[in-house]
Amino acid sequence: MTDLPMVVPAEGLPARVRIHEVGARDGLQNEKTVVPTEVKAEFVHRLAAAGLTTVEATSFVHPKWVPQLADAEALFPMLGDLDGVALPVLVPNERGLDRALALGATRIAVFASATESFAKANLNRTVDESLAMFEPVVARAKADGAHVRGYLSMCFGDPWEGAVPVAQVVRVAKALMELGCDELSLGDTIGVATPAHVGALLTGLNDRSIATDAIGVHFHDTYGQALANTFAALQHGVSTVDASAGGLGGCPYAKSATGNLATEDLVWMLQGLGVDTGVDLGQLTATSVWMAEQLGRPSPSRTVRALSHQES
Amino acid sequence: MTDLPMVVPAEGLPARVRIHEVGARDGLQNEKTVVPTEVKAEFVHRLAAAGLTTVEATSFVHPKWVPQLADAEALFPMLGDLDGVALPVLVPNERGLDRALALGATRIAVFASATESFAKANLNRTVDESLAMFEPVVARAKADGAHVRGYLSMCFGDPWEGAVPVAQVVRVAKALMELGCDELSLGDTIGVATPAHVGALLTGLNDRSIATDAIGVHFHDTYGQALANTFAALQHGVSTVDASAGGLGGCPYAKSATGNLATEDLVWMLQGLGVDTGVDLGQLTATSVWMAEQLGRPSPSRTVRALSHQES
Repeated sequence: MTDLPMVVPAEGLPARVRIHEVGARDGLQNEKTVVPTEVKAEFVHRLAAAGLTTVEATSFVHPKWVPQLADAEALFPMLGDLDGVALPVLVPNERGLDRALALGATRIAVFASATESFAKANLNRTVDESLAMFEPVVARAKADGAHVRGYLSMCFGDPWEGAVPVAQVVRVAKALMELGCDELSLGDTIGVATPAHVGALLTGLNDRSIATDAIGVHFHDTYGQALANTFAALQHGVSTVDASAGGLGGCPYAKSATGNLATEDLVWMLQGLGVDTGVDLGQLTATSVWMAEQLGRPSPSRTVRALSHQES
Repeated sequence: MTDLPMVVPAEGLPARVRIHEVGARDGLQNEKTVVPTEVKAEFVHRLAAAGLTTVEATSFVHPKWVPQLADAEALFPMLGDLDGVALPVLVPNERGLDRALALGATRIAVFASATESFAKANLNRTVDESLAMFEPVVARAKADGAHVRGYLSMCFGDPWEGAVPVAQVVRVAKALMELGCDELSLGDTIGVATPAHVGALLTGLNDRSIATDAIGVHFHDTYGQALANTFAALQHGVSTVDASAGGLGGCPYAKSATGNLATEDLVWMLQGLGVDTGVDLGQLTATSVWMAEQLGRPSPSRTVRALSHQES
């Protein structure tokens, strides 16, 4: 039975990819079901045990906005100190930063928008006003010794504005780096990007001296493009890829499936390409099958479905 | 509302891709529901109207083996002469060829295996015995002026044998070309391939003087790899890609989802890459939504789901 791909290394790809696992935060935040805190803690522990070295744990956003993650204060201390595993948390503003730092978080993330429409819808601010809001957050986090990731959403298309010009994304990306972000995550929030568009944005960032090492990619599979786009990003030297275990956050039966790239589908490709991830695909798949049971619905990851069905 | 990707042409890709649409044959043959003949005819007509120039219509296999396509004799004459649209049909042997040619088919396809295990399971022959069986089929089709496609299945992995060596696939591919096939379709029947594996096989075929122009790729999305593999094939110069409208033939709820690459997901990527297909994505999506209604279940194509949900 074939349950791992044949390894055929590709020339010119990174030897190792760091997967930034977002299932426990971006995934669960977009699921209807509110998961008990102990289940979340077990989820994070199982993801780490499967070999993921960066597991975004939760968000210190106001519970009114994201009730699914209202238990951040209770959850974070339950995670403990996982040896060699980074546990970043999202913070929307200084108040969120205070809560995260008080609990000992050493990696934080802010969430910016490349478009005015989404900045307005999500943050009720212009892009520049939101950057001004993030300035003290990033500065204080850095002063505290924390590592800061800047999420940049709507990097390719926007539901109100359509296609987003590369120059516009580069401008906001550059501003986030100048605020002090250690890395960026380029989000295709509505999943419309195609491979050469990805290449054009990465080239645009390089042209403004943003090192590829500081760039992660965050694709959504809304139109089925996430893995092809990831392959294109790898060909441009990107070695940090966001993904969500089991494809959490993208219910295949929901009308507005946001469709995070499933970590398992990514790992299958990277294993085949001979790119090291440190992840045990079987253990990760078992974790996603378990999590799907908690949520009461099958995983949208094709790899999870294929591997779990093999056994039944 | 973004309903088409931003066009960012990639360097080094073919200017035009011919999509070999397999939904009416490979798709419906793998669906549990038996579709009425008139519905199949309308499906083929709608696919052609959406701009697909090659629409594989049916299979002249014995009804005992594929009851879903038992109406080939009734269906084929209903299709008529669609201007500029090729309507290939699958024939398993000389008896099938006779039936197809008697009805005026001008493009036929044979279905070979790269592995002994699948040749035995599917054809009850060794690989060489199956090639011997195809020899008079191809010769007589060519003598009749027909165009011949050779499907080659299990080109990357096999459920019994695991990973399939490139040299083994190249040997059978070369033999099919020497029988007189005009083109090959390289099938990843169980969906395990990854992009560099695709490149290695294409390089292997080139090394044996099989022109890239004569090669089509046929990926299954079992592990979510189909579109990334397609992108890799395009980068190697391949300009014929098999796909199934709406992802027909790969039910997301079935245990053994074969998962044909959905034509809509392919068209989305090609449109974004500035590669001409001649296909109207909206019209194609509407066709797949209509076909999903006939089958009584949603399309597994992510693009079909995203585009059809936008309107509701």
